[in-house]
Amino acid sequence: MALPIAPLAVALGDPAGIGPEIVAAAWAARTARNVQPFFAIGDLRAVKAVWNGPIVVLGAPGDAAAMFPHALPLVQVDDPGEIVPGSPNLPGARCALDSLEIAVGLARAGTASGVVTGPVSKAQLYAIGFNYPGQTEFIAERCGMVVSNVAMMLAGPTLRTVPVTIHTPLAQVATVLTTDLIVSRCRVVHRGLQRDFGIDSPRLAVAGFNPHAGESGTLGRQEIDVIAPAVEILRAEGIDAFGPLSPDAMFHPHARAAYDAAICMYHDQALIPLKTIHFDDGVNITLGLPIVRTSPDHGTAFDIAGRGLASPEAMIAAICLAGAAAERRRRG
Amino acid sequence: MALPIAPLAVALGDPAGIGPEIVAAAWAARTARNVQPFFAIGDLRAVKAVWNGPIVVLGAPGDAAAMFPHALPLVQVDDPGEIVPGSPNLPGARCALDSLEIAVGLARAGTASGVVTGPVSKAQLYAIGFNYPGQTEFIAERCGMVVSNVAMMLAGPTLRTVPVTIHTPLAQVATVLTTDLIVSRCRVVHRGLQRDFGIDSPRLAVAGFNPHAGESGTLGRQEIDVIAPAVEILRAEGIDAFGPLSPDAMFHPHARAAYDAAICMYHDQALIPLKTIHFDDGVNITLGLPIVRTSPDHGTAFDIAGRGLASPEAMIAAICLAGAAAERRRRG
Repeated sequence: MALPIAPLAVALGDPAGIGPEIVAAAWAARTARNVQPFFAIGDLRAVKAVWNGPIVVLGAPGDAAAMFPHALPLVQVDDPGEIVPGSPNLPGARCALDSLEIAVGLARAGTASGVVTGPVSKAQLYAIGFNYPGQTEFIAERCGMVVSNVAMMLAGPTLRTVPVTIHTPLAQVATVLTTDLIVSRCRVVHRGLQRDFGIDSPRLAVAGFNPHAGESGTLGRQEIDVIAPAVEILRAEGIDAFGPLSPDAMFHPHARAAYDAAICMYHDQALIPLKTIHFDDGVNITLGLPIVRTSPDHGTAFDIAGRGLASPEAMIAAICLAGAAAERRRRG
Repeated sequence: MALPIAPLAVALGDPAGIGPEIVAAAWAARTARNVQPFFAIGDLRAVKAVWNGPIVVLGAPGDAAAMFPHALPLVQVDDPGEIVPGSPNLPGARCALDSLEIAVGLARAGTASGVVTGPVSKAQLYAIGFNYPGQTEFIAERCGMVVSNVAMMLAGPTLRTVPVTIHTPLAQVATVLTTDLIVSRCRVVHRGLQRDFGIDSPRLAVAGFNPHAGESGTLGRQEIDVIAPAVEILRAEGIDAFGPLSPDAMFHPHARAAYDAAICMYHDQALIPLKTIHFDDGVNITLGLPIVRTSPDHGTAFDIAGRGLASPEAMIAAICLAGAAAERRRRG
């Protein structure tokens, strides 16, 4: 008999945000929603401040699986002191960063089968000296990866999108976008869909950049000069990429049925369609890492933290997707 | 008793496209879908080639209302010769342009209460010397309007969007986008929502331009330098505009409930969310014209013309929206 798979490590994110309550809610839904075993990493008092359910503080993370049916297993990081939901502070940011680092370490060591990261406040992290664009870049470095070799995918039940460029001012995207960058992102996505989603022959729909995909060059030349050559290179490698497609005509249900992921040229080309239809259940999954890593596709929502208003749907989806990906990787 | 409102003029668009069949289908659905009386303008043979229902060729457009319950009323333009669905040609393009021009003339004269335009092929129109970016610009000129004083709105049952810039290559949008342009578009939209949609106090959600609306300037400055000042000017005029909003967080159902129209900075920011959820029933309505003008938000679809596959939903929605707007304008 195969050994049972290790539980997932779920970093709670900023203790003053909605992370603690949505992770607790995901645990409470473990049976109804078939949520895979996980343990939380963060601060006990932050969870207690927003939730009345059973919590077990773990002596060793290895005990998590046995405890999971009975209580929310938690790995306590350095105590950040009093946490007030909705009021972020620097000790809380340190707690969030510690949680993230421990989660990645446990996943790399195999004690966790994957990492799910709760929402953090970049402003707070920057204030304590964090100098990565986001958690993804931090995790990539901790895994010894170059960021250009990972890809951020937004995954909802009926659509997956990947932005080729991410946090680039829109007016600069045209100068950053290259054939090489598109090709390398697509290779990562191709492999990620195989490895983490179990799709043998992934179909990649590559978006254009301009209105109507440039209309044969009259509305811009990125399709001709940059994107089409990338599609050609990918196809020559046997990757089922096609495009560039007219960006406004590729996200309706009929069009979505023709591909497994939409490769988008800029942040909002990927995020607008995804969040239009999957605002509450979109998951961010980092492809190309040696470990499984997902995250709910929303922020700390300090404005509603601790008020029982936050939807745990995206967190539940993030845990379930990480669990499924971990299981697929284990099978090989 | 008030005089009955004049019927709408529906230009069939390119006779080799799906225009004739979807207009005929809209007539066939007149009772079931409560479609307002209209007459078609175009070529009789093009309709007969794709439809077996009753057609009456009008001697005078004024007879349309009386005939509408019994047969599709049609104003014949110069005979373009034989039309083969799916095979556009230059006489067909001339027929489409004639139809458009007659429709606008009849609406300006009051013989039609508004104009609905079927899909045309720009490539075909350009080949016969048409030199406008699209039908909208042609209609604006025929109505004596400067194009900057009209606005293109995409309207679906649950979302309305307006692109401030339209057919501009994406890398050039930042140079074209000005505070003045945003302000003038918003004024047109505000007035159009009052006049054509009957919304007394329209709420305009103004999108940002960059990822996360620029994140306080770190991801681009258009929000600070260009968009926020426009919102301020509009609010000082008493127009309920707000923003700039993070573009990826303003199109889910809960966010949409807070506004009557989304003001978008570029083509795909407006068209992607609209077509993601309203691909089959989106209507293009030109605001700011002295006449009512709508159009289904899709193309000629030459590839499926004459095969009975085209959905008439957008054409029905375009006719119904034009009819409702015309009725509101008549009431004042």
